[in-house]
Amino acid sequence: MREIERIESPYLLFLGNAQDVIMAKTAFGLVEWRPSDCAGQLRLPGCGVDIGLPDMSIGEAAQSGVNTLVIGFAPPGGALPEAYVVPLIQALDAGLDIASGLHVRLADNPALAEAAARTGRRLIDVRHPRENFAVATGARRTGKRLLTVGTDCAVGKKFTALAIHSALLRRGVAATFRATGQTGILIDGHGVAMDAVVSDFIAGAAEAQSPAAAVDHWDIIEGQGSLMHPAFAAVSLGVLHGFQPDLFIVCHEPTRKTMTAVSAPLPNIAEIIELTERLGRATSPDIRCAGLSINTANLDDAAGRTLIEDLQSQFNLPCVDPIRTGVEPIVEAFL
Amino acid sequence: MREIERIESPYLLFLGNAQDVIMAKTAFGLVEWRPSDCAGQLRLPGCGVDIGLPDMSIGEAAQSGVNTLVIGFAPPGGALPEAYVVPLIQALDAGLDIASGLHVRLADNPALAEAAARTGRRLIDVRHPRENFAVATGARRTGKRLLTVGTDCAVGKKFTALAIHSALLRRGVAATFRATGQTGILIDGHGVAMDAVVSDFIAGAAEAQSPAAAVDHWDIIEGQGSLMHPAFAAVSLGVLHGFQPDLFIVCHEPTRKTMTAVSAPLPNIAEIIELTERLGRATSPDIRCAGLSINTANLDDAAGRTLIEDLQSQFNLPCVDPIRTGVEPIVEAFL
Repeated sequence: MREIERIESPYLLFLGNAQDVIMAKTAFGLVEWRPSDCAGQLRLPGCGVDIGLPDMSIGEAAQSGVNTLVIGFAPPGGALPEAYVVPLIQALDAGLDIASGLHVRLADNPALAEAAARTGRRLIDVRHPRENFAVATGARRTGKRLLTVGTDCAVGKKFTALAIHSALLRRGVAATFRATGQTGILIDGHGVAMDAVVSDFIAGAAEAQSPAAAVDHWDIIEGQGSLMHPAFAAVSLGVLHGFQPDLFIVCHEPTRKTMTAVSAPLPNIAEIIELTERLGRATSPDIRCAGLSINTANLDDAAGRTLIEDLQSQFNLPCVDPIRTGVEPIVEAFL
Repeated sequence: MREIERIESPYLLFLGNAQDVIMAKTAFGLVEWRPSDCAGQLRLPGCGVDIGLPDMSIGEAAQSGVNTLVIGFAPPGGALPEAYVVPLIQALDAGLDIASGLHVRLADNPALAEAAARTGRRLIDVRHPRENFAVATGARRTGKRLLTVGTDCAVGKKFTALAIHSALLRRGVAATFRATGQTGILIDGHGVAMDAVVSDFIAGAAEAQSPAAAVDHWDIIEGQGSLMHPAFAAVSLGVLHGFQPDLFIVCHEPTRKTMTAVSAPLPNIAEIIELTERLGRATSPDIRCAGLSINTANLDDAAGRTLIEDLQSQFNLPCVDPIRTGVEPIVEAFL
């Protein structure tokens, strides 16, 4: 198996001509979770966003030791306009790798591919893993694992996992964040976009990403999708079986009525807990729910806090909003 | 989306130098289920198998109207020895397509790729779908659908689906077999190897394969793997969600203790019924189990029939062995 690629920091964050925080959310994620890896920002004329890093030219970035230009914005339509290709070639010529979470593959652009070959630098398309994974074995591995699961896509699984990982490191607990989606991979510099893996190998890719570890080491794993999502449940189940978590956290957005991009109703928390336990036992016989992470951004502070208290009583599990309350109650309970 | 490829019959079944029925099981499957599509067999010197079709040279096959040479055997190790490449090039030169369910991609062999380009014939690698599928929508489609699911891999899901499909056609019911694995695709000439689809698109590939149909038309769908299989459950769940079956049949091999290729214990029938119903409701709210298909080949006739009667009482569902009893009791019950 080809080693899982690692993106080398420090990063220069390329913002293109992003007009708002949504278009540049990848860059904001990197600055939030890995500030010490982010050396500067590169903005094209007309860019309407400032992520608070020093503006750097590609030459300045190379001189200051930057190793990778990360595409930190989503171009409209997902394609790569010619105006962005020129600075990317300059970056390769200056000795930088390029990392991208776009759907379009950098390596499919002939000019970029030629420049990468000429300079010996890497085009790291995190949505297009190049590793060949083996079929999963289902064998138990040493070490402890916690997975964030969800009632839907985009409910805070990555955020919750990163927050728990940070909380463990602050306490001096040995822990590794395991990224399973493109933004998580760019933040961490390492990981596999699980939804881009061929179905036969998805659980195997999860096994490869979370190998046997010291018995008191924690892998904190970003989950994907939802076991009840009509389009993405296969990814959720491959992640669950392959990572074989001891514990899971259910992430939920309480104001949502239907699941992302489909008309199916949102499953409830109890249903996701039960399904995750039932299915998870195939590879982790003692799997259990260790808490709830509620994204209350669409509620006011009082309503959010009341809901969290109510759910905590109802499920008899630690319940948090990682932004409003932090994740300490969950970490405190499972350690 | 690229149209799902169709393999054109009649077929010449290439047996290479297969030494036994196991090595040639694909060819035996084609002759069993689609005898009128199979015109002849092509055997290399030393071949130890006879599937009962006329021996034909490639020239004779082309003259008698054969459209496709199907690789009906598994070469040891899965690679394609040079001795097999020469007749394959002759087949392309004679105007035949070639269809293969091998892991190795015919199109990756430079001599074959060159010959296919020169002759304008197709190399159809059914394990390597070339279609680009969309993400699933989860929307309900008209028509009726039945899916075979299993407690494990290789318990009779394909066989049961083919048998139910045949029984429906005998009764004059409009029905289409939907193949989801390489042998099923070669038998039917049409289908998608679901385990070879990128995870993000697996439910979408199932939706594409089973479009809206007349309200009384049945799609009879070959399932894959098992929802509790540590390596392949993601494929099983993508198939379940995308095909949105109204009915499912649980296939089971009662003497097996552990699941294929792993040490995990075999799940029981009740567990698979409950999980299939729970998860299946995401796209098919009224999904229900319509019967059990028990592969009793490893029991003697009396023990097999007793077990079938016992399970029928226990679950209050029609229970068959498609070989010992036929599938009529299931078809009779659900029509």
